[in-house]
Amino acid sequence: MSTSSTLRCALLAAALSASVPAFATPQQGSGVAWDIVEGITTEIGPRMAGSPAEGRARAWGAEKLKALGFQNVKVEEFKTLAWTRGPESARLTAPYAQPLAITALGFSVPTPKGGLKAEMVYFPTLAALEAVPEGSLKGKVAFIDHAMRAAQDGSGYGPYGNVRRQGPTIASRKGAAAVVIRSAGTDSHRNPHTGVTIFAKDVKPIPAGAVSNPDADLIARTAARGKPLAIDLTLEGKPFPDAPSGNVIADLPGRDPSLPIIVLACHLDSWDLGTGAVDDASGCAIVTAAALAAQKDGQALRTIRVLWSGNEEMGIGGGGGAHYAKLHGSEPHAVAMESDFGADNVWAAKFSASPADKPLVDKVKAALWPMGITPHEGPADGGADVEAIIKAQDLAVIDLGQDGMHYFDLHHTPDDTLDKVDPAALQQNVDAWTAVLKVIANEPGVIGKAGAK
Amino acid sequence: MSTSSTLRCALLAAALSASVPAFATPQQGSGVAWDIVEGITTEIGPRMAGSPAEGRARAWGAEKLKALGFQNVKVEEFKTLAWTRGPESARLTAPYAQPLAITALGFSVPTPKGGLKAEMVYFPTLAALEAVPEGSLKGKVAFIDHAMRAAQDGSGYGPYGNVRRQGPTIASRKGAAAVVIRSAGTDSHRNPHTGVTIFAKDVKPIPAGAVSNPDADLIARTAARGKPLAIDLTLEGKPFPDAPSGNVIADLPGRDPSLPIIVLACHLDSWDLGTGAVDDASGCAIVTAAALAAQKDGQALRTIRVLWSGNEEMGIGGGGGAHYAKLHGSEPHAVAMESDFGADNVWAAKFSASPADKPLVDKVKAALWPMGITPHEGPADGGADVEAIIKAQDLAVIDLGQDGMHYFDLHHTPDDTLDKVDPAALQQNVDAWTAVLKVIANEPGVIGKAGAK
Repeated sequence: MSTSSTLRCALLAAALSASVPAFATPQQGSGVAWDIVEGITTEIGPRMAGSPAEGRARAWGAEKLKALGFQNVKVEEFKTLAWTRGPESARLTAPYAQPLAITALGFSVPTPKGGLKAEMVYFPTLAALEAVPEGSLKGKVAFIDHAMRAAQDGSGYGPYGNVRRQGPTIASRKGAAAVVIRSAGTDSHRNPHTGVTIFAKDVKPIPAGAVSNPDADLIARTAARGKPLAIDLTLEGKPFPDAPSGNVIADLPGRDPSLPIIVLACHLDSWDLGTGAVDDASGCAIVTAAALAAQKDGQALRTIRVLWSGNEEMGIGGGGGAHYAKLHGSEPHAVAMESDFGADNVWAAKFSASPADKPLVDKVKAALWPMGITPHEGPADGGADVEAIIKAQDLAVIDLGQDGMHYFDLHHTPDDTLDKVDPAALQQNVDAWTAVLKVIANEPGVIGKAGAK
Repeated sequence: MSTSSTLRCALLAAALSASVPAFATPQQGSGVAWDIVEGITTEIGPRMAGSPAEGRARAWGAEKLKALGFQNVKVEEFKTLAWTRGPESARLTAPYAQPLAITALGFSVPTPKGGLKAEMVYFPTLAALEAVPEGSLKGKVAFIDHAMRAAQDGSGYGPYGNVRRQGPTIASRKGAAAVVIRSAGTDSHRNPHTGVTIFAKDVKPIPAGAVSNPDADLIARTAARGKPLAIDLTLEGKPFPDAPSGNVIADLPGRDPSLPIIVLACHLDSWDLGTGAVDDASGCAIVTAAALAAQKDGQALRTIRVLWSGNEEMGIGGGGGAHYAKLHGSEPHAVAMESDFGADNVWAAKFSASPADKPLVDKVKAALWPMGITPHEGPADGGADVEAIIKAQDLAVIDLGQDGMHYFDLHHTPDDTLDKVDPAALQQNVDAWTAVLKVIANEPGVIGKAGAK
């Protein structure tokens, strides 16, 4: 190109790229939060619950938290049921030979040696699968489609994520030899989304995998042609018991140690396909940086504790959150919060609190007002890492809702890497959490039970 | 450019533009819904409540609805308090001379002849304005900033929209000679957002305008420099009483005329700056096309009525919705719905219904499931055009929530024009409404009172 045509082209490109999401271009951040996300993703990488990498992440976290000035830094290990990935591949063999991008779901069991070659039956919804008689899929593979849509509040993940969580159990009840689902995700890349499935105790676990959205589209179009589908499926991942996992906890002691503490949670484990940048190194980065920032102008009144939880991803109620409640359920807590929804901007706040704490909640709302963060109808639910301690102590909870419009593009995929973290949005999270902590960690009065029971 | 460099450039441009929102490129649609939006915006254009254009829109609507096969088409006129825009301009005169892009708010009163030259006091929030003593702004202009953020559920508009709705009343109480606000909008264009303000009965109305977001940014940066601000303000718009407005209603009669009807509302009036494409020609297009589509495979059981309401924008509880309830409050209604949030995709559904109608609500949810539309916590609230009839009859309500991420970029601005309507998203709205109507308009049993009281 000539210089002038190159320039014209560059200007056109610049004009068009103005609307491209921030994470399309990797950026370099700075500060405590960025250092944590950058450090975990660079020095540890993928860190499946029960794996040696998760152990290294605990050691990394304990060292980092000490270096940042936290006290009472503890690694609290526990044993857990874990799962390891094996070789995995799939291809349609009829009516058209097509390779498929697939990944196994956590707690999938292995296909037979040499792979499983079987007819595949297409179900447009989980309800369609539920409607067929028990035993009717004997020897076949069930394919479950769904229609998850990106939403700022991530609301598609609850209902359509059930295809992953419950679909394999239902398929097994129908006699299926294996199950393949459309990924619980909102992107259009050839990256399937992994994630845990939960086999009910009374069903036989079967091999279970997810194909990427473009592959699911292909399967749906093929099924619409009315000819029988067949698949050749290899998924060699399998569960293993008594794996080592653990939490890292650390305190910034308050001026009045007699006051119930504030606990801020995230999770240290990640899926293996990416490096767990948005899920959930960012959460650990946000809560840790905010705890420090809330004490920047002087020690806070109440102790702020961070909980970097182990095995959130495959814990199913028995992971790090449960272990924390078991060990610390008798220590008085006042408020629990968790960050586990990526690194995009906070836009909404939810509250679960005693009606008597309305003045405190109003102070928090006023602190968030100038940031454009609006109160939404509750209840706040915290998340998997604080669920057990909230339940044990009927704790007040504040949720700072992050923008989830792009979260399920990345969640549980190989694409969950550092370049997706926008340093400005990460810092906005820290600022929002800091604003909240400056209010609640300096509250001298009683913070009541939420009354959620 | 050479052919090959032009091609390379075009490919680059195409790759980059893949992420640009759909409405960046005007598209040509087809079908009933598109024809209505295209027709109203082309043949009528802006149609302020009480204006001759609003009258022409009623005639256009009645003719269109008859042509589409609706029956009992009626224009039901009423008198209303209206407002007309006059010349408007503003510039900062101190500390730096800067032109400002401004527009008057509905029910603003005129500035003195020759304009108002006065000191302007910056308030970062409505709360900051509320905090100053009554009378303290005598002779001054109050500027009210805020931090509205784009959200898919439009949740910033409630709280930050109060700056527009209540700010002028509060400024008047403080003695201000006029008030200027940051537009209740989320774009970064030099297009200020108009909209109605509501002067309390016990305060003196004052001139009230909104500057565009870039201008509000400039004012905030200037205020941060700590030097006194001054403005030269001209806003000549003013209210006028007893203006003609009116509703257009039309029915698609059901097979059983004894059953309570379904009413679907939108509003026909618009602000004057744009052509009211997304607010709310699209709403009228969506409800009308869906009513027809729901009868495509045979007459529905229940009568479906469309209400193209007059004076929604400046009605403040006394517009077309109130007039409809006055005339039709004794006719049995079963369900009310309204479309007045643009033309982007439906993503969420809310329900207000009797607990006894759970099976019916579940059927509606199941119809929306394959479209990726998820149920959200209620209550459904309908909107301004059905508020009065809902209240009068304690009606069941279904809200189909549209994606509002870009709505407040356009709302009440000159940019609310046809090119912003994505034909595919418009059709997705029609499909979602049709799916709901096929269930509820064919429900033979009693549809109960919502029990909202």
